[in-house]
Amino acid sequence: MIHFVPPHLEKFRAKVPELVKQVDVVLGNLEDAIPADAKEAARAGFIEMAKATDFGSTGLWTRMNALNSPWALDDMIEIVGAVGSKLDVVMLPKVEGPWDIAYLDQLLAQLEARHSVKKPILIHAILETAEGVKNVDAIASASPRMHGISLGPADLAASRAMKTTRVGGGHPDYKVIADAEPGQGLRASFQQDLWHYTIAKMVDACASAGIKAFYGPFGDFSDAPACESQFRNAFLLGCAVAFAKRVLDAMPDGTGAVMIDGRMQDDATWKQCKVVVDLAKQVAAKDADLATLYGF
Amino acid sequence: MIHFVPPHLEKFRAKVPELVKQVDVVLGNLEDAIPADAKEAARAGFIEMAKATDFGSTGLWTRMNALNSPWALDDMIEIVGAVGSKLDVVMLPKVEGPWDIAYLDQLLAQLEARHSVKKPILIHAILETAEGVKNVDAIASASPRMHGISLGPADLAASRAMKTTRVGGGHPDYKVIADAEPGQGLRASFQQDLWHYTIAKMVDACASAGIKAFYGPFGDFSDAPACESQFRNAFLLGCAVAFAKRVLDAMPDGTGAVMIDGRMQDDATWKQCKVVVDLAKQVAAKDADLATLYGF
Amino acid sequence: MIHFVPPHLEKFRAKVPELVKQVDVVLGNLEDAIPADAKEAARAGFIEMAKATDFGSTGLWTRMNALNSPWALDDMIEIVGAVGSKLDVVMLPKVEGPWDIAYLDQLLAQLEARHSVKKPILIHAILETAEGVKNVDAIASASPRMHGISLGPADLAASRAMKTTRVGGGHPDYKVIADAEPGQGLRASFQQDLWHYTIAKMVDACASAGIKAFYGPFGDFSDAPACESQFRNAFLLGCAVAFAKRVLDAMPDGTGAVMIDGRMQDDATWKQCKVVVDLAKQVAAKDADLATLYGF
Amino acid sequence: MIHFVPPHLEKFRAKVPELVKQVDVVLGNLEDAIPADAKEAARAGFIEMAKATDFGSTGLWTRMNALNSPWALDDMIEIVGAVGSKLDVVMLPKVEGPWDIAYLDQLLAQLEARHSVKKPILIHAILETAEGVKNVDAIASASPRMHGISLGPADLAASRAMKTTRVGGGHPDYKVIADAEPGQGLRASFQQDLWHYTIAKMVDACASAGIKAFYGPFGDFSDAPACESQFRNAFLLGCAVAFAKRVLDAMPDGTGAVMIDGRMQDDATWKQCKVVVDLAKQVAAKDADLATLYGF
Amino acid sequence: MIHFVPPHLEKFRAKVPELVKQVDVVLGNLEDAIPADAKEAARAGFIEMAKATDFGSTGLWTRMNALNSPWALDDMIEIVGAVGSKLDVVMLPKVEGPWDIAYLDQLLAQLEARHSVKKPILIHAILETAEGVKNVDAIASASPRMHGISLGPADLAASRAMKTTRVGGGHPDYKVIADAEPGQGLRASFQQDLWHYTIAKMVDACASAGIKAFYGPFGDFSDAPACESQFRNAFLLGCAVAFAKRVLDAMPDGTGAVMIDGRMQDDATWKQCKVVVDLAKQVAAKDADLATLYGF
Amino acid sequence: MIHFVPPHLEKFRAKVPELVKQVDVVLGNLEDAIPADAKEAARAGFIEMAKATDFGSTGLWTRMNALNSPWALDDMIEIVGAVGSKLDVVMLPKVEGPWDIAYLDQLLAQLEARHSVKKPILIHAILETAEGVKNVDAIASASPRMHGISLGPADLAASRAMKTTRVGGGHPDYKVIADAEPGQGLRASFQQDLWHYTIAKMVDACASAGIKAFYGPFGDFSDAPACESQFRNAFLLGCAVAFAKRVLDAMPDGTGAVMIDGRMQDDATWKQCKVVVDLAKQVAAKDADLATLYGF
Repeated sequence: MIHFVPPHLEKFRAKVPELVKQVDVVLGNLEDAIPADAKEAARAGFIEMAKATDFGSTGLWTRMNALNSPWALDDMIEIVGAVGSKLDVVMLPKVEGPWDIAYLDQLLAQLEARHSVKKPILIHAILETAEGVKNVDAIASASPRMHGISLGPADLAASRAMKTTRVGGGHPDYKVIADAEPGQGLRASFQQDLWHYTIAKMVDACASAGIKAFYGPFGDFSDAPACESQFRNAFLLGCAVAFAKRVLDAMPDGTGAVMIDGRMQDDATWKQCKVVVDLAKQVAAKDADLATLYGF
Repeated sequence: MIHFVPPHLEKFRAKVPELVKQVDVVLGNLEDAIPADAKEAARAGFIEMAKATDFGSTGLWTRMNALNSPWALDDMIEIVGAVGSKLDVVMLPKVEGPWDIAYLDQLLAQLEARHSVKKPILIHAILETAEGVKNVDAIASASPRMHGISLGPADLAASRAMKTTRVGGGHPDYKVIADAEPGQGLRASFQQDLWHYTIAKMVDACASAGIKAFYGPFGDFSDAPACESQFRNAFLLGCAVAFAKRVLDAMPDGTGAVMIDGRMQDDATWKQCKVVVDLAKQVAAKDADLATLYGF
Repeated sequence: MIHFVPPHLEKFRAKVPELVKQVDVVLGNLEDAIPADAKEAARAGFIEMAKATDFGSTGLWTRMNALNSPWALDDMIEIVGAVGSKLDVVMLPKVEGPWDIAYLDQLLAQLEARHSVKKPILIHAILETAEGVKNVDAIASASPRMHGISLGPADLAASRAMKTTRVGGGHPDYKVIADAEPGQGLRASFQQDLWHYTIAKMVDACASAGIKAFYGPFGDFSDAPACESQFRNAFLLGCAVAFAKRVLDAMPDGTGAVMIDGRMQDDATWKQCKVVVDLAKQVAAKDADLATLYGF
Repeated sequence: MIHFVPPHLEKFRAKVPELVKQVDVVLGNLEDAIPADAKEAARAGFIEMAKATDFGSTGLWTRMNALNSPWALDDMIEIVGAVGSKLDVVMLPKVEGPWDIAYLDQLLAQLEARHSVKKPILIHAILETAEGVKNVDAIASASPRMHGISLGPADLAASRAMKTTRVGGGHPDYKVIADAEPGQGLRASFQQDLWHYTIAKMVDACASAGIKAFYGPFGDFSDAPACESQFRNAFLLGCAVAFAKRVLDAMPDGTGAVMIDGRMQDDATWKQCKVVVDLAKQVAAKDADLATLYGF
Repeated sequence: MIHFVPPHLEKFRAKVPELVKQVDVVLGNLEDAIPADAKEAARAGFIEMAKATDFGSTGLWTRMNALNSPWALDDMIEIVGAVGSKLDVVMLPKVEGPWDIAYLDQLLAQLEARHSVKKPILIHAILETAEGVKNVDAIASASPRMHGISLGPADLAASRAMKTTRVGGGHPDYKVIADAEPGQGLRASFQQDLWHYTIAKMVDACASAGIKAFYGPFGDFSDAPACESQFRNAFLLGCAVAFAKRVLDAMPDGTGAVMIDGRMQDDATWKQCKVVVDLAKQVAAKDADLATLYGF
Repeated sequence: MIHFVPPHLEKFRAKVPELVKQVDVVLGNLEDAIPADAKEAARAGFIEMAKATDFGSTGLWTRMNALNSPWALDDMIEIVGAVGSKLDVVMLPKVEGPWDIAYLDQLLAQLEARHSVKKPILIHAILETAEGVKNVDAIASASPRMHGISLGPADLAASRAMKTTRVGGGHPDYKVIADAEPGQGLRASFQQDLWHYTIAKMVDACASAGIKAFYGPFGDFSDAPACESQFRNAFLLGCAVAFAKRVLDAMPDGTGAVMIDGRMQDDATWKQCKVVVDLAKQVAAKDADLATLYGF
């Protein structure tokens, strides 16, 4: 279980000491969902949170801003400078080719040397363009720092002009229909998985390089069964699954309404998410593989 | 909307001045469907048609003969020599690798220089072999002249020994069946999309190179719902769609019988095609994306 | 039809002279299913069988041990040395890249030269890892000795962390579900093909290189309809199909129980296999393509 | 011996029937030294000369215009169309990479097919830029049509900003000087070979590809010993040598003055060239290797 | 003419306003010759000097510390941050492959974006290892920022185990000797140029990429004729020459003794350098090419 | 110092126990200079010698037969099988590309595993063709087993059609001549080094890969000063030098005549070799670098 924390908000940071006892990874998010005018505050909040907390065996990750943004360089300079020895993994969004990994690899090497960070900080790449998927074999083997790869399905679909009805989901019109047969009534139709090629290719690239293909952390929790189906499919094709409980984190008691990734999340959403998590726990109790799947 | 014109036939050429007011692209076909003994006549007819017509903002394309045929070189020498300044795009069939694009690229450069053609003529590649699909990444980025890529599904299926019941379509036996469960009756089965890998790979190659992946122009219109399903699937995976109204063009009033691509097309076909186009218009009226899909 | 013979067992070798009249290929298996302490006996048995038999136009193949095993080098030195002129194809398991083919290619060249083997021995590669699938394009064109490629789906699924309920089969939970619609009851779900990417990519690699993509020889015959579905799907996507009648061979009269690939096969299995083969014959009688499919 | 003929000049063409009895190769030059307004005449003259002459076992070559010139395409279309079956080798000037060879290769293939030329026309590449030398390995193996490679040293030196006092020659200031020693007078200095890298790299590329590295046909004959030294050095490093007797051809009896490659050649030049050729014959009489060197 | 300034020393900085009127380029040196405990001071001095001076059309360069040193990242962050708009070229020492250029390229892009630097800062690579020379083709074309390439001959010789008696110079024992002839006395010997391969390869890489190959800035001025010979040779092979008048700068009036690159330079050195510069001016007066050579 | 032993001759094997106290490496030669009908005897003699001798810290190498010979495979199978744990380095002649190294690498891995050889046997590649020199970068980094690379200059010159008057030596006619000056008498000429490109390229490939470029073991000792000059040149360009005292070994006391590499070596040769070795010792006494050069 990876918990996304928006580190510019004090009330979320305040819960981190409690959180580290329950989760596998605390991730400080600096990228999407953090407004441009809160970027510096988020970075500073992350550093403060990292300094103030004893993480024990719980992982500390950050999702930095994209390399072509004005914040990427300072994200690394300030964070590695201040709390490099506590940082385990940097998620790098919008990776397009091995050159992006090579750049971050050398930047981290220099910053680690400057600040005497002994343990190498790992890199987790997020693919969000057709170019990135095209180059996934080279990305997976671009550096010994590679920790894993996951997808950013909303941007990826946009980059390809793919159409889906949910982020990372399918489309009811992607279907094959049975051949017509004389005297038969309605022809059967069968919905197809828009993501088969993408996930199968990423799994082979990662397995070849000896790293893990991840699914998530993302997802629109407003359609719990569909969301569960996405996660199951990725898992069955070979992905590890990072179950991001963003909605539950944002509304731990199911009250109030919050904005997550620019979208209003209310009580109804909370209830559905609760259903997913409860279901996941229930299924996992009987099935070790699915326990892994759901991160319990 | 792209209209295929067989330029060796005077009666089709005669309609072109009217056609340019209604369609986006007029394409003079020199390749498949033109008999070997009509190749010179088709080329000459295309030149005559290009000279005689004011295309305004309507595009003028040609589908030349394949590079390994005896007509390819003269197709380019004569057409660019005579009407190079009016030609927008050359469709190159049976592209197998970037070397085919490189050849046509330089041939066009020399002919443009010789005839003072100012605007570069673009290239649209048609993949019709497994080799072409294997090399699609390199083909997409082989030249700044690249306009787009589409599939020739009949030849492609043959090159792979794929089996389909319609050109570009599926096969009822490509299906998965549910696991058997004790005491259960008939096991459910689910038909699959034979083309998922092919189209998903082509979309990524094109999106990476900043060009468009096209679906069509092709299709067996005798099974309208299946044909529509093919187009929808390609569109949802990221293709632009070029809806080729060949049958309607050949029989604008639905009377008589004509040969299209070596197959007899009669009234029944015409009616089904009419249904597809009418349906397309109806759906497009409510859905801007699908309006794009059907070229309205 | 390819018949797998376990050559360390005298009673199977004894049937070979009869077998060569009925089948296309006799394959002496040295790899999986042969216990470590029977490896030398299997190799010696294969040589004895090859010497003793007049194969006529029936093919003689062997599945050697993997290159990283302690038996691979002697498999080739002893077999080519003793019966090289009778050997048609070597199946090489666990191929990961063109380097594996290059090695076997040169080893065969040296052994052929030493023993004056005039006809080049061909290589059939089995892919059993994500690395192998990633490199399938290069493997297919690694040597003019390449005869074909097939999959080892059990190891391949393990290498990718894919989950299936049958070797080479699907999983009931790999499915997409229809979008929810208000007032509608149970949402439809559609099972998907876990193997589409793998097989489509292998077919293109092989078709590009002018060799055949094979499906099988493998399969869990305990679920006949599911097994048939697997074979049909691979065939429809472009694979040749090598129908391995291992179970029927092991129990030609359906009596007794035998161990095949470490799993007990009993009468019930035999009956199901009989059904598959009978069905195959029946279908093939009406359909020339499927006759090819089933090797009749 | 290769004789360069300027085919737009009737008086040179008139000597060709006599020439074919004495030389190994007659080369019709269309490129440098032919003025722009004589390009069509040279091409036509070459065709006329090719048609009118029975070459027997003497080779017929042409040096076409560069691919980025306005004449290249017509050079090939007209010459192969008219006399393709008599043409042995096309020298392609200003080759920069394998793409240039690939283009000419396919153009020749199409023209040969169109005109039923049975024997493949070969390609001889001339490197005249740093880019060409950088890519010489790939150029040498770009096509089975490759006959050989030679240098265009004047343009090559210019492309690199190299300075020489003769075309293809050295510079007196490229020298190393001995270390200073106390009490010693003038320090010795040793002139160096500016072309060692270039020729050694070209020789390896050609020898690897199984084709010949050529030196010449070029040279400033006004400094006979220096010219001979250039040829000897190239020969010793592994080049075949094509001794182009352009000056002697232009003034067979040593009278009059002619323009060769835009430079006035008079009696004095003729005498020096005569010395070189006589010397070459004399040396060759005693040394079989040097007989090869000078083409006797 | 490029003037190397050690920017941590106030007295050298004080001369810069005068210097900009006389030279083409002022280069602030941060790397070799700057002691480790003066690195921060040199960087700060460079920034102060850049801020305080109006450079007009005179170029401002810096030689940063190597990428694997602890100072490289701050060199760029602080200098581009403070005076990025005034900086023309960054010399990057110890470049080993295109990855080093790719890293600096992206780092500069991010810093230019952050500080609104409008004109792209160029990169000049210094090759100081065998690895760098091996990869020079790829280095030259690694980025549109590439300004040129030069050699660091002292480190390069060490990396290869080459032996020279002067930095960038020759060795008296690298010589060929004439074949022995009976009755002949002392056999002649001819010293060879140790650097021919290196410089010829660098020139082709740079000319292909459309950038300049530079020779220097380096050199041991204590042997003026040998030094001049090195520069001439590089120039004749195609290098531009950057004549670094470090010694004269350090002792403008020839008095006193200074340490340059860790070696004591005294009056005698100064006199020899004076001879070189005077000679260069004298030669250049008669020879436009050599005027370029010496930067007058 | 590397001593070449012809292991099929008992009298040379008998000296090995004494030899190991004096030299760095004992090399059993199986390739050139061993007649075809003595190949098996040489291999058996090497094994006998390896078993019978305690080598202490002295290295044991073998020069195996080329991969395309009928003896290569058995050389490795028998030697590694019998004395693999004593073998340090295999010299592989006629290496043309990384594929040759890859083959031997895997063959050794399998034989080491079969015979429980704990220490990896290293590979020393000999380049004897233009193809090998072209690919030297890839050869140097083809395997972690790479120990070094050296040249086989006789075959290499033949492969390139280079002409030399001594094996690995120069040619008196490879020279540049001074420009002519009016009123001057005989023009100076300067002999050049035919091997500069070859050795400089090999040195960079090896230095990049972190292995050693070797010069020798070879040489025609009949011209001692020329031979010494070759060794010095290679050393100065960056080669390590393996001084093969084959002649002295063959005639330790200078009496008798022996055949070495098919050429009669008599007393005169012995005296010259003695001179070289004595000179080498004398020079080495004053110069640590040259002591390394000559292996003292």
